[in-house]
Amino acid sequence: MIWFNCDYSEGTHPRILERLAQTNLEQTAGYGNDPYCRQAAQLLKKLCNAPQAEVHFLTGGTQTNLTVLAACSRPYQSILSAVSGHINVHETGAIEATGHRIEALPEEHGKISAAQIAKFCKDHWAEENPEFAPQPRTVYISFPTEYGTLYSLQELKDIRRVCDENHLFLFVDGARLGYGLTAPGNDVTLLDLAALCDVFYIGGTKIGALLGEAVVIPNPKLQKDFRYFMKQKGGILAKGRLLGIQFLTLFEDNLYLEISKHANDMAARIKAACQQAGFDFLYDSPTNQQFPIVPNEILAELEQTYVFAHNKRIDKNHTAIRICTSWATREEDVEQLVADLHKLGGK
Amino acid sequence: MIWFNCDYSEGTHPRILERLAQTNLEQTAGYGNDPYCRQAAQLLKKLCNAPQAEVHFLTGGTQTNLTVLAACSRPYQSILSAVSGHINVHETGAIEATGHRIEALPEEHGKISAAQIAKFCKDHWAEENPEFAPQPRTVYISFPTEYGTLYSLQELKDIRRVCDENHLFLFVDGARLGYGLTAPGNDVTLLDLAALCDVFYIGGTKIGALLGEAVVIPNPKLQKDFRYFMKQKGGILAKGRLLGIQFLTLFEDNLYLEISKHANDMAARIKAACQQAGFDFLYDSPTNQQFPIVPNEILAELEQTYVFAHNKRIDKNHTAIRICTSWATREEDVEQLVADLHKLGGK
Amino acid sequence: MIWFNCDYSEGTHPRILERLAQTNLEQTAGYGNDPYCRQAAQLLKKLCNAPQAEVHFLTGGTQTNLTVLAACSRPYQSILSAVSGHINVHETGAIEATGHRIEALPEEHGKISAAQIAKFCKDHWAEENPEFAPQPRTVYISFPTEYGTLYSLQELKDIRRVCDENHLFLFVDGARLGYGLTAPGNDVTLLDLAALCDVFYIGGTKIGALLGEAVVIPNPKLQKDFRYFMKQKGGILAKGRLLGIQFLTLFEDNLYLEISKHANDMAARIKAACQQAGFDFLYDSPTNQQFPIVPNEILAELEQTYVFAHNKRIDKNHTAIRICTSWATREEDVEQLVADLHKLGGK
Amino acid sequence: MIWFNCDYSEGTHPRILERLAQTNLEQTAGYGNDPYCRQAAQLLKKLCNAPQAEVHFLTGGTQTNLTVLAACSRPYQSILSAVSGHINVHETGAIEATGHRIEALPEEHGKISAAQIAKFCKDHWAEENPEFAPQPRTVYISFPTEYGTLYSLQELKDIRRVCDENHLFLFVDGARLGYGLTAPGNDVTLLDLAALCDVFYIGGTKIGALLGEAVVIPNPKLQKDFRYFMKQKGGILAKGRLLGIQFLTLFEDNLYLEISKHANDMAARIKAACQQAGFDFLYDSPTNQQFPIVPNEILAELEQTYVFAHNKRIDKNHTAIRICTSWATREEDVEQLVADLHKLGGK
Repeated sequence: MIWFNCDYSEGTHPRILERLAQTNLEQTAGYGNDPYCRQAAQLLKKLCNAPQAEVHFLTGGTQTNLTVLAACSRPYQSILSAVSGHINVHETGAIEATGHRIEALPEEHGKISAAQIAKFCKDHWAEENPEFAPQPRTVYISFPTEYGTLYSLQELKDIRRVCDENHLFLFVDGARLGYGLTAPGNDVTLLDLAALCDVFYIGGTKIGALLGEAVVIPNPKLQKDFRYFMKQKGGILAKGRLLGIQFLTLFEDNLYLEISKHANDMAARIKAACQQAGFDFLYDSPTNQQFPIVPNEILAELEQTYVFAHNKRIDKNHTAIRICTSWATREEDVEQLVADLHKLGGK
Repeated sequence: MIWFNCDYSEGTHPRILERLAQTNLEQTAGYGNDPYCRQAAQLLKKLCNAPQAEVHFLTGGTQTNLTVLAACSRPYQSILSAVSGHINVHETGAIEATGHRIEALPEEHGKISAAQIAKFCKDHWAEENPEFAPQPRTVYISFPTEYGTLYSLQELKDIRRVCDENHLFLFVDGARLGYGLTAPGNDVTLLDLAALCDVFYIGGTKIGALLGEAVVIPNPKLQKDFRYFMKQKGGILAKGRLLGIQFLTLFEDNLYLEISKHANDMAARIKAACQQAGFDFLYDSPTNQQFPIVPNEILAELEQTYVFAHNKRIDKNHTAIRICTSWATREEDVEQLVADLHKLGGK
Repeated sequence: MIWFNCDYSEGTHPRILERLAQTNLEQTAGYGNDPYCRQAAQLLKKLCNAPQAEVHFLTGGTQTNLTVLAACSRPYQSILSAVSGHINVHETGAIEATGHRIEALPEEHGKISAAQIAKFCKDHWAEENPEFAPQPRTVYISFPTEYGTLYSLQELKDIRRVCDENHLFLFVDGARLGYGLTAPGNDVTLLDLAALCDVFYIGGTKIGALLGEAVVIPNPKLQKDFRYFMKQKGGILAKGRLLGIQFLTLFEDNLYLEISKHANDMAARIKAACQQAGFDFLYDSPTNQQFPIVPNEILAELEQTYVFAHNKRIDKNHTAIRICTSWATREEDVEQLVADLHKLGGK
Repeated sequence: MIWFNCDYSEGTHPRILERLAQTNLEQTAGYGNDPYCRQAAQLLKKLCNAPQAEVHFLTGGTQTNLTVLAACSRPYQSILSAVSGHINVHETGAIEATGHRIEALPEEHGKISAAQIAKFCKDHWAEENPEFAPQPRTVYISFPTEYGTLYSLQELKDIRRVCDENHLFLFVDGARLGYGLTAPGNDVTLLDLAALCDVFYIGGTKIGALLGEAVVIPNPKLQKDFRYFMKQKGGILAKGRLLGIQFLTLFEDNLYLEISKHANDMAARIKAACQQAGFDFLYDSPTNQQFPIVPNEILAELEQTYVFAHNKRIDKNHTAIRICTSWATREEDVEQLVADLHKLGGK
């Protein structure tokens, strides 16, 4: 079987394995206090043009989200998220388990708007007793979103403005950041994110690393004591260099963006083939996740060979699926799928 | 410099790197639902002679402790630990952050006794309003302890009996388990632990893995819904196989115990050299951590070459240090240290 | 001004003050271990025909909700509530602050249905990895609801059945229970609630007490160690008798239901007057809360004399308000309001 | 039986009952937004000479402690307390349940010293990785202590200085504050507390109120959003005036201090009688709690008539008990006890 169900089916980019082998028997300090973590942090700050930022490494998305949002919030403060946001649907209440309410706003294409955020805050503060509901404090968005869609730079700037007006932090979940940065039509850069966000993270797990997310914290308020949060939530690895080495490898030669673009290119071919086959799409995604709506009999045939993630039953004859490419997707597998789509779609 | 300050200075055992490379491009299911995690779990259950147990993999000690203890406890229940227990001193209040009080009992050689536990419970239930204090529910001990010492099988059996009498869970933190199992004089086996504990873990991070701890759960009550806890605490890796592959490698050919024994052998040589040099010891440890009390002028000379962890100022002329060996400790480094101790101690 | 904005504007029923005065200098045990609490608990169990139940007294609604729901839930478990449920909108994230996610279901007339609950559970368990979302564990409903509406006995039985089928607790928030029990058309009794719920509470604060809610726990699983929860959440009063005396007074002579019915009767007169004036209603409530939609110019005139709670802006000419009666509402005040409605509505 | 076991055996001072009756049918705003709460807050600020302070009313000691300490702490921060502190021993882990570790320092006469606090902080910050332990943030002390003892003004000033040097909040638990302020030898005033503390509370429950504690917050950092904490923890009463009326009554005519002094005077007589009888004391308390060590046969005789709290078994012939007086203690009961002590002690 060929797996297109997610972007974490394989291990890690071979250059990372090589680098781990080269450095394996070196003795370094633990807990992220090693030279690799320091170098990787320096490099990321440089690439973000954010010398005053702090960079920390954590092991996965849920852990990063719960740690960052704990750092953003006092106990009575809430997080605004799209109803489809990862923290709202796929993390077993990890945020609530740290004591915070997520205020789920209706999404459009997986996104929320500056206007929605502004209205939510206005309504809160207009209450006779605002303190009878949690106080909005942090906006959580994903770039790309769960549906593979992207915020434009203007949308992010509008959200930033509303955050400033309402004393809100802006946190961007970049679990798939590379796939967004290298998508066709995207106008957002790493520098924009560093300039607009209070905190964001650069996902490694889904883009070539064995595991690991790099948290970039431009806002000094959130830098303070962040390692206490990391340690308390079980997020500091004894052999922290495992994360530093990976991010150094991914970023010192532009590898991260190259392999991200590869995934997007592969996805674009599949998207085109689906369009040619006459399929509609649940969402219009320019990134590595595609959500075609497939007639059930065609899906049944495809699933003889390919593994997809089922997303949603559309009607009795159609199912929306998620097709995911990644840094590791082989061109020949994509060509085979494209050919099969052509063959089956043409019937 | 030669580092003897801890047991996680290097990367991972070379066989693990090989295995990761061999399997790297295989596509597997995520989140620990892959064949490697399944095989590793099966193997550990077999080695524990505990077919009914469940085995899960987590990334580090603090995360494992907080996840397991959340599963053991209702909100009003407490954990009994030696005052020197890792959860009580080195985890930034991770347990309290999940809402639970640690009741710290005085330690002897890093250990607590069945009698102490029994007395604590008796006192609790003898209160006029027991509900005015947290209810003791779980006993947390480490094997080996923070001081490198070991519980005897009889001591563990006594603690188990008291746990049964008082409706308590027994949880053994095995972050350095291999170093305990292979220590001279130890009479506790993996089978004993599986028979006596409700839950325990087999530490990988400090014994040859890049990262990872294997949680063994013989008690069905704690098995139930354990993965919800793991996910909520950020403990499920997308590429869970990273952990499965490592534990499979460590245990399928006895590698884990071999490298553990190596560390103990190296530590024993250093211990003997310290004794010959006339040093006292803070604790009498048969495992890979040694705590000699060193005259300051000798320490100053040694620290030209070696890195140790400072443990405690004893008096104005003496300092207790921690010397740690590991699976990766090189025999030649130990020989050099022994020679230096001989030379300096003989003065 | 005459206040119709809520049901807790006055102090307490005079018979409660008398009783407090009569017993004031008696010496009793603290923390709810006094004869009055015991007698009140006995009485309520008898009135519920639930000799095996436990009854505890807490001070207010939010505290009761957070304490009960902590007792119902493991950390990864969620509570199903109408989106309009009190815990979801008016308690500053008190439930999330104990670590639990509220799954907010769409409401109809303030209510959720057995079918909605069943579907939610079915969807959860149908997930590939159910443990990636919180596990549904407790159904929270209010009787009457926030909108003054009532579940029928059949609706409650249907919910109970779905709870049984899905291993869910049923918790009924009865902050205004008396107003529901004595409402025209209601077919639910205290005995029904005790038979159908795992836990529910009988509100005192809004029905004649100075403060206090009586938690009735028919389910032995939730009885266990409940006082630990109460103490930990700050819910045990040193002078617990303050609550016992009040509930004894409210229930030993049927006072609770009498004063509840009085409030409903007063509300019914106001409702009729609003109908005669041609007002629509936001919700069709048979209890002490009425939600008429009032033309703004009439509202402005009424507000020269009366205090209402604004509920919602309907359009530029109309506002929905909440008019609340209580045990303490004076008949002459209602007559005056009715007359004013008649006068203004007739224009 | 005559109860000397605690200071909350009776209801409330008769003047409070009168005031409740006088105001009972007035209609006021809820949730502490009423004129009585406002007047009481104003009065207390004036008596504290702290016009910039905020005053809020909560229902009991545990609730106050957990609410205040939540407001003082970020999730990784800890509270320093005497090992005998109420939060450390009698609150079912309420503080830990909000996520915070209590660092229990050895006590002397129930007190901790500035030097202990300074040393704890110094040790924390001297660690190689301070973030591996919770960060000390708040000092919690009680005035009077659990043992009835008092800090001198100089001791409080020293603690304040150490708090300033170490960026710590100082929180004084004044559950029995009046008994401390009016004790012989005390040199601390309400003004001193307001000047030295970041937050403290004036206990009502144990000094004449039905229930209620007045939290005084001189530090603006802790004032911010405090009502969110109160609401979230279930601490805002719908009929908040119940608390405002009581504190107004207790403080507008000095009643609080008068009845406190009465309790101390009664305790002093009992203390003298115990001394005459030749009893030792567990602690030397100038306040309403006395801890004599009583021969068991005398205790058995006394307990025919009186109820005491048992504190501690001293040896096989002696028991330390707690004798408590209160605002409500009747002089004739004390005279009878003194006579009995004289009679029995003289044997």
